[in-house]
Amino acid sequence: MSEQRFHVDGVRVLADLNTLRGIGAYKTGVHKPTFSEPHLRSLEWLVQRLPDAGLAGGIDGIGNVLGTSVKQGPKLLAGSHLESQNYAGWLDGPLGVVYALEAARVINPDPNAKGAVEVASWCDEEGHFGSFLGSRSYVGDATESDIEAARDRNSDRTMRDALREAGLSGRPRAKAERGRHIGYLEAHIEQGRTLESRALGIGVVTSIVGIWQYRITFTGEQNHAGTTRMADRRDAGLALAKFCADIDVRFPQVCGPRTVWTTGSITLEPGAPSIIPGKAEMLFQMRDDDPAVIDRLEHLLRNMATMVGARGPCAVAVERIRTGAPAMMDAAFQDAIEAASRDLAGGKSIRMPSAAGHDAQVLATIMPSGMLFVPSIGGISHHWTENTADADIVTGAEVFVDACRRLLAR
Amino acid sequence: MSEQRFHVDGVRVLADLNTLRGIGAYKTGVHKPTFSEPHLRSLEWLVQRLPDAGLAGGIDGIGNVLGTSVKQGPKLLAGSHLESQNYAGWLDGPLGVVYALEAARVINPDPNAKGAVEVASWCDEEGHFGSFLGSRSYVGDATESDIEAARDRNSDRTMRDALREAGLSGRPRAKAERGRHIGYLEAHIEQGRTLESRALGIGVVTSIVGIWQYRITFTGEQNHAGTTRMADRRDAGLALAKFCADIDVRFPQVCGPRTVWTTGSITLEPGAPSIIPGKAEMLFQMRDDDPAVIDRLEHLLRNMATMVGARGPCAVAVERIRTGAPAMMDAAFQDAIEAASRDLAGGKSIRMPSAAGHDAQVLATIMPSGMLFVPSIGGISHHWTENTADADIVTGAEVFVDACRRLLAR
Repeated sequence: MSEQRFHVDGVRVLADLNTLRGIGAYKTGVHKPTFSEPHLRSLEWLVQRLPDAGLAGGIDGIGNVLGTSVKQGPKLLAGSHLESQNYAGWLDGPLGVVYALEAARVINPDPNAKGAVEVASWCDEEGHFGSFLGSRSYVGDATESDIEAARDRNSDRTMRDALREAGLSGRPRAKAERGRHIGYLEAHIEQGRTLESRALGIGVVTSIVGIWQYRITFTGEQNHAGTTRMADRRDAGLALAKFCADIDVRFPQVCGPRTVWTTGSITLEPGAPSIIPGKAEMLFQMRDDDPAVIDRLEHLLRNMATMVGARGPCAVAVERIRTGAPAMMDAAFQDAIEAASRDLAGGKSIRMPSAAGHDAQVLATIMPSGMLFVPSIGGISHHWTENTADADIVTGAEVFVDACRRLLAR
Repeated sequence: MSEQRFHVDGVRVLADLNTLRGIGAYKTGVHKPTFSEPHLRSLEWLVQRLPDAGLAGGIDGIGNVLGTSVKQGPKLLAGSHLESQNYAGWLDGPLGVVYALEAARVINPDPNAKGAVEVASWCDEEGHFGSFLGSRSYVGDATESDIEAARDRNSDRTMRDALREAGLSGRPRAKAERGRHIGYLEAHIEQGRTLESRALGIGVVTSIVGIWQYRITFTGEQNHAGTTRMADRRDAGLALAKFCADIDVRFPQVCGPRTVWTTGSITLEPGAPSIIPGKAEMLFQMRDDDPAVIDRLEHLLRNMATMVGARGPCAVAVERIRTGAPAMMDAAFQDAIEAASRDLAGGKSIRMPSAAGHDAQVLATIMPSGMLFVPSIGGISHHWTENTADADIVTGAEVFVDACRRLLAR
């Protein structure tokens, strides 16, 4: 059937993934921040593989790799990313790139296969410098001033300096050619436990949740932690802590079944043990694929802040700093993945939203897009212990290539 | 009476304080971190004033200034500190040094005045590098390895490097000569509102509260803020916030009338908006002049932590990192200050504990010690707007010098 016609080479897929794991290895994972030497070496590795797939391309002016085909017929764009979070897993990103490469290697040289798969590696999906700047550059949503402002959140190095040091300064940034692609397909590890807990092999992504982010600032009065009596205090840190505890009580009453919310960062000023914090700031994030749920929660959040401010003793300001409309995955793409799963994964698939952000949400703004997930062992991600069973990796590759074939054959 | 005999020169006291304010001025306050150029210049200024007071001395190997007298009779040690908190007030420290200098200038040259006042400026009372390292060096409670380990909490410069750059390397550290002094007297601004709110001029310090400090660490599981469902989370930051909110409810039920407690620092790891914190740490401080109250509160704190840990989902560890027994001020010193206040401040004094730490608590470990407070406008301290009315500064100087006379005359 499909496998026979296309000869998806599971051994080659695993070997490629392990080669990429060897570049910037950290324990059983990798440490490849954006524009680090191992990241750049991984991009070069991909560029060198492109001719095997009948593709031509290189690294562009923002660190994207684009491999294009001159083959006649429809073209499907596919890929993911090659940098990693710090000291993180080997599959988060490379899996989708290697699947795309495998699809291109199998489909493109075959005169009987309709059309071609073009391979992309989007730079900085992991957000060391910004938010999806690589794929946003491709779809035309990253301006020169966005790039000018981008800095590595760890080292504070500017993206401009990083590009110069990587020898990429002055190269053009590849831009999407409208109408060139029938759509974009991306594979990724699930990063959750849905597939594993139901013994499924493939997640058919229906949507990518939106991410809404807020800076919530509490302003009190900085004072001496010894001489200022409890009754006289306006402790911004305490106001923040009580607010977090209150969110934990109130949000479950109005959230949706899959809403998640997180306070990932808290800063007290001046942050000294003998000084009452005069200012405190938290970064608060909510995710849901239903904007109506988010509207309801944002309304609650702002009401809570207003009441805390009115009651005193600290002022509260809520500022939305990121607005992420959910991205819907294309229905035909979902159908193609599901059909391929039926043929090649015993139908062990489920339709599910993605609770993590992916480049597919950016590509979805200009073309039909789809995503498939493979299981994550223990749901672990953004940690070097992240892993997926070899058999699941190979099944995922077979389903991915078959889904590409189905989409190109329409 | 006392004023006539001693000619305390209020104009000279104010002029000296304003001269010191001019060195490292910041708005109406000063910025003189330990071993900064303005701090070192202030120490040099003091050294140059010593001969006017019949004193000889210089800067020692840890940045203390000690002025010693060869006059016969009893000797009283008096002083405070000349460095400041960052961008802070002009009187926090210099007031006590200038009062001591004034007492020495008035008493030491007078053949009819019994004994002498010796003047000290203790280095780093404000704790840029450590905890009272200057006065602890003098009383023999700072080892070479304490000094070796000391680093500027802002710049991370080592104390050794700072001493070398200040040209103080290799100088001996002055050590207390047992039996030399009848005791130690220090004046300071109150840094609270007790005196101002009761229209009083002098605080007679009965004790300096102990400071107990704890590192409370919450350990959960670092995970993806999108793909990890609320029910599966072990959010260390949320556990910390709830703990802070709980302290705010539970502590008032068992604290003493003057107990204060503060969470001045909170750190979430890794501290990124899209990652559930796997670890969270708070620095928690309590102050009271009654160790029994602290015992009770520490017991409560540890019980709360045990219950939170048992309930889950995060583990909690409470580590005491600073144990501050309260320092009792000498009864004869309190009487001398109170008597001087009766004569020179219309009796407008009150006995009160100090809720802030001072070098007197270190000196009290080896000799009888006393402290007097002057009012702080609005109770403000550790801020450049810190201030005291000129008239209160002058009255404080008169009371201070008279208290010195009384102590030396016994």
